[in-house]
Amino acid sequence: MIEKKEKYSVAVAGATGAVGRKMLQILEERNFPVGNLKLLASARSVGKDFMFQGKNVIVQELLQDSFSDVDIALFSAGAEISRKFAPAAVKSNCIVIDNSSAYRMNSDIPLIVPEVNPDALKGNPGIIANPNCSTIQMVVALKPIHDKFKIKRVVVSTYQSVSGSGQKAIDELKIQSQEQLNGESSTPNIYPHQIAFNCLPHIDNFLDSGYTKEEMKIVNETRKIMDDDSIQISPTTVRVPVFYSHSEALNVETEGPVTAIAVRELLVKQAGICVVDDPENNVYPLAIQGEDKNDVYVGRIRDDISRDRAVNFWVVSDNLRKGAALNAVQIAELLIGGGQPSQN
Amino acid sequence: MIEKKEKYSVAVAGATGAVGRKMLQILEERNFPVGNLKLLASARSVGKDFMFQGKNVIVQELLQDSFSDVDIALFSAGAEISRKFAPAAVKSNCIVIDNSSAYRMNSDIPLIVPEVNPDALKGNPGIIANPNCSTIQMVVALKPIHDKFKIKRVVVSTYQSVSGSGQKAIDELKIQSQEQLNGESSTPNIYPHQIAFNCLPHIDNFLDSGYTKEEMKIVNETRKIMDDDSIQISPTTVRVPVFYSHSEALNVETEGPVTAIAVRELLVKQAGICVVDDPENNVYPLAIQGEDKNDVYVGRIRDDISRDRAVNFWVVSDNLRKGAALNAVQIAELLIGGGQPSQN
Repeated sequence: MIEKKEKYSVAVAGATGAVGRKMLQILEERNFPVGNLKLLASARSVGKDFMFQGKNVIVQELLQDSFSDVDIALFSAGAEISRKFAPAAVKSNCIVIDNSSAYRMNSDIPLIVPEVNPDALKGNPGIIANPNCSTIQMVVALKPIHDKFKIKRVVVSTYQSVSGSGQKAIDELKIQSQEQLNGESSTPNIYPHQIAFNCLPHIDNFLDSGYTKEEMKIVNETRKIMDDDSIQISPTTVRVPVFYSHSEALNVETEGPVTAIAVRELLVKQAGICVVDDPENNVYPLAIQGEDKNDVYVGRIRDDISRDRAVNFWVVSDNLRKGAALNAVQIAELLIGGGQPSQN
Repeated sequence: MIEKKEKYSVAVAGATGAVGRKMLQILEERNFPVGNLKLLASARSVGKDFMFQGKNVIVQELLQDSFSDVDIALFSAGAEISRKFAPAAVKSNCIVIDNSSAYRMNSDIPLIVPEVNPDALKGNPGIIANPNCSTIQMVVALKPIHDKFKIKRVVVSTYQSVSGSGQKAIDELKIQSQEQLNGESSTPNIYPHQIAFNCLPHIDNFLDSGYTKEEMKIVNETRKIMDDDSIQISPTTVRVPVFYSHSEALNVETEGPVTAIAVRELLVKQAGICVVDDPENNVYPLAIQGEDKNDVYVGRIRDDISRDRAVNFWVVSDNLRKGAALNAVQIAELLIGGGQPSQN
C-alpha cells in the first residue's frame, strides 16, 4: 500500500475542527507510528497549538505545497477544501484520506470502511474516501447480515446528533437549550429552525426528488461500500437534540431466511460491533453511552412482525469517532499494513 | 347516540393530570355544551380548583358513586383507575370516553378517531376508547391513503415527546437538561435512563417478542380503527428530548399505484390534516410548531426510492391534543351529534 517505514509523516488538514481534533486524539490513542505531525488549517487558525505525544504542535496554513514531506494526509475541512488541496497533496506523493463528500462517489476512488471492504483498498489510489457518518455505522452492522442472508431492502430512520454539524452546532444546541429553559426565545443560526427540544427532518440540502443529500449519501455510499447496487434503501434522516452519537432505527429485508437470533449470533462475533441487547433489563444502545467509544452498538434486535425474512434493530455509534476520525485512522492503519480492530 | 339536551353534565376523571387539564381547556375552546362540570381526581388532589367558563370548579374525590348525575365522563387517569371506576359510571347511565389502554382492544368497545371511523360509534356502547397518541396521528394520515390505495405494510419510527409520560416527565427533562448544561450528572427517575440530550428506544414495557407495549398498541389499534387486520406494521417507538408533540417517520407500501403527488392531493383535502411540505424553503412539520395545535401535520411526502407502490412521509401532532384530549372531546361531540372537524 505504502512504502514501509518505522514512522510516517502525517498531516491533518482541518486540524482545528471537531473531527480534526478527534483525529489527533485517535492517532495518539492507537499509537499510530507518527514521525512528523503537521497540523494544517485556514489562515485564521494559524498559530493555535495542540499537544501530541507530549509535544506542542503549532497549526500552519494549509497551502498547495504543504504536503511535499508528508506520507499520509487526513483531510476533514469540507468538500471544497478537499477539492482544492487534495490533488496537490497527491502530486507530492502523499496519500490523502478524505473525510469530505468530495470524492466518495468517484469510481476511481475507494470508499472504505475497514471492517466492511478493506479489500477495496489496493495499490496507491492517491485519494481514499472516508464515508459519511450515518453510512459507516449502518454498513458495519449490515455487512455480516448481507454476507449471510443477502439484503434486499433497508428502511432507515436516523436520530443524528448535532456534533455532525461541527462545534458551532454543539454551541447552538447548548445556547438554545438554556434559552428555552429560561423561557426565552431562540434564533436559529446553524440550523434553519430551533434544534433545542425539537426534531428536524432535514440534514444537508434537499434535492428535486424530495430527499436530502444526507439521505442519498446513505443510499449511494452503502451500495458502493457493499459493492452491490441491488440493495434498495429508503432513508429518512433527522437531526435530534443530542450532542454526540447518531442513533438509527433499521428495518432490513433479506433474500435468505433471516431471524433476530441469527443476526444476534452474527453480530456478536463481529469486530467493531458491540451487541447491547437485554431490553427486559432496560439494556439497549444509547447515544449518551456511545459517546467517545469506538464500537458500533447494536440492540433491540427483533424479528419483523410485519413480514417474513426481515428484522428490526437499533444502531448507535459516535459520529465523530467511528463515523469520521476513527474510520479515517483505521484506513491509515490499513495503508501501513497494521490494521487493528476498532474495539475500545 | 345520547339523549339530546341543551347542556350536558360532564365529568373529567384525572382532571389534574396533563391530559385532564388539556381536556378542560378544549371543552372550553370548542364551546362544548357543558352544563354541570365535575372534576374528579384522587384524594390527594381534592380541593384544587380550576377556572372553567369563568367559574371556579373544585376537584372532588373520584368515587364509585361520582357519576349518578353525569352524562359524559372523560377518563384520563390510567388503565387501573379506568378499570376500577368506568363500569360504575356506565351503571349510572353515564357514557365513558376512556383515554387509557384499559378497554381499547376489547371487541365490544369502539375505538374511535372521529376523522377515521366515526361510524364505529353506534348506539350506546357504555365505554368508548380513545386510542394511543402515537396511533391517532398515524391513522389520521393513513386513512385516506388506505381508502384509495389499500395499505399493505407500514414501517414506522417514532420521535415521541416526554409529555406523553405526564407532567413529571416534563419536569425531568427540564431538570436533567439544566444539569447537563451545568456539567452536572443526572439521575433518571421517570425514565430508566437520562432523557436529556439522548434518545431512548423504549416506550412502555417490553414484551417477550422484543417489542414494547407502545409498539404493539400502534399495530393492534391501527388495525382495529381501520377495521382491517391485513395491514402489516413494523414499529420502533423512541422517546426523544422534546417537550410536546410526537413526530413519526412513515414508510407506507400499498396495493395500488400510490405516488407522493397523489398522497399530497388526498391529504390536502382531509379535515384534521394540514400539509406542510415545501422542503426547498425549509418547510416541513416540526414538533415545536405542532405544540398546542389541533391538526395533524404531514410533510416530506416523497416517493419511496427503494420500491414501487410506496411513499415516505413525516407526521407531527400535539400528543396531548389530537393524541389525547382533543380526540376524546371530538368523540363527545360525535356522541351529542355535533361533530366538528379538528382544524385549528
